[in-house]
Amino acid sequence: MRILVSFLLLFLIHLAFSEENSSSHILPRPLIFETQLKSVDDNVHCTSWRFAAETNNLAPWKTIPPECADYVKDYLMGKGYVADLERVSEEAWVYASTFEFPGDGKDTWVFDIDETLLSNLPYYLEHGCGLEVFNHVEFDKWVEKGVAPAIAPSLKLYQKVKDLGYKVILLTGRREKHKVVTVENLLNAGFHSWDELILRSLDGQNKTATIYKSEQRDEMVKEGYRIRGNSGDQWSDLLGSAMSERSFKLPNPMYYIP
Amino acid sequence: MRILVSFLLLFLIHLAFSEENSSSHILPRPLIFETQLKSVDDNVHCTSWRFAAETNNLAPWKTIPPECADYVKDYLMGKGYVADLERVSEEAWVYASTFEFPGDGKDTWVFDIDETLLSNLPYYLEHGCGLEVFNHVEFDKWVEKGVAPAIAPSLKLYQKVKDLGYKVILLTGRREKHKVVTVENLLNAGFHSWDELILRSLDGQNKTATIYKSEQRDEMVKEGYRIRGNSGDQWSDLLGSAMSERSFKLPNPMYYIP
Repeated sequence: MRILVSFLLLFLIHLAFSEENSSSHILPRPLIFETQLKSVDDNVHCTSWRFAAETNNLAPWKTIPPECADYVKDYLMGKGYVADLERVSEEAWVYASTFEFPGDGKDTWVFDIDETLLSNLPYYLEHGCGLEVFNHVEFDKWVEKGVAPAIAPSLKLYQKVKDLGYKVILLTGRREKHKVVTVENLLNAGFHSWDELILRSLDGQNKTATIYKSEQRDEMVKEGYRIRGNSGDQWSDLLGSAMSERSFKLPNPMYYIP
Repeated sequence: MRILVSFLLLFLIHLAFSEENSSSHILPRPLIFETQLKSVDDNVHCTSWRFAAETNNLAPWKTIPPECADYVKDYLMGKGYVADLERVSEEAWVYASTFEFPGDGKDTWVFDIDETLLSNLPYYLEHGCGLEVFNHVEFDKWVEKGVAPAIAPSLKLYQKVKDLGYKVILLTGRREKHKVVTVENLLNAGFHSWDELILRSLDGQNKTATIYKSEQRDEMVKEGYRIRGNSGDQWSDLLGSAMSERSFKLPNPMYYIP
């Protein structure tokens, strides 16, 4: 029965396409083909938007394009996001392994936290995955629960980088008042033995992340650290002064931090 | 007839899926669904590779992954590449329009040439679109023909940036010996009235593009120019010292220049 259905299906698809060629200017196309075509166009448009966001080509953006809401959700919940996270972790690991260490403990890897080590996807899935304007009050409530899961490929990289002997510095936009819950969350998610955790102090509140993080990296360099690698989901984690020798941009189509 | 075929088609698709649910552990799936699934996986894999290449996450790479050859060609010849080129041109234009000029002629836009203003796609289509290792001799023959077409969305941006009053500097990895043919090619492709064209001199041959272009930008800044925008298809056009206030990364999944 199954094989018969398949053959009949292929035959009818063939028949439908043959008719298409001979009379497409007269008869409307069957709905199924139009839907496919439309979805291809949306896909091109939203993939193009994602490319622009991820390569830092977009002017500062507040929310994702409404027509790409399903696209972004499908990407995050499907194979695309996981594949991208795994790829960036692997590339970083290959690069991290290339150094011969002098053993002075100055070779450093910097990690951002949110959407780099810890995932806030459970929060964003309840808040439109970038479709809603960012709400500090609501997001703080989520942070204070301390239940953000590890991004598995980043945990793998984190452990490898530790094993290789890098000094690991966590540099986050999270504020000092969230220190305890952040430490607890990191430990519960499997991140142990970092060398330093830098949170944003009160006087750093009004700086852009690019400036705040650059200043922190400037300090590291002054103290003699060689920043070999930097992993972050925002360009503001990676660009500015005292840039790392290699930067690794994790995907994040949900929000933009200047 | 047409409508009948469509209904029958939908009914059989439904039937095939119903069977799938009830007996997928016993019967092999029909080939048509497996093929679709495979192509989705290749697509995820190669999109992920492209994301990694475009965000500068890949270690220096020489050729595209062989399994992504069709994917890259389809991207370049389909709607994806054009959509990405148009988006980056539009974003750059929106940004370029935000400045109030003091009228001192120091506000500058830097453009790379190959795969930014001029397209070498006709050459690369004959050389595997990144599947072949870069061949200087063959590529030089192509450059010397002087027939590379304009990238249309970049030509639009170029003209708008000129109209807005920016000083336009073309900064290319092409060598001095190709100056005449490059000027001729640019003019024939519609690019007129640039303020400066900087080609690579003999003593700059052994530098990476990142260093060579950084040095050239350092000079511009020393001369008092404010580099407001920089358009390039390589990160080596955009990163380094004297970075532009905003950089615009054009897509290029075919080759990497350090």
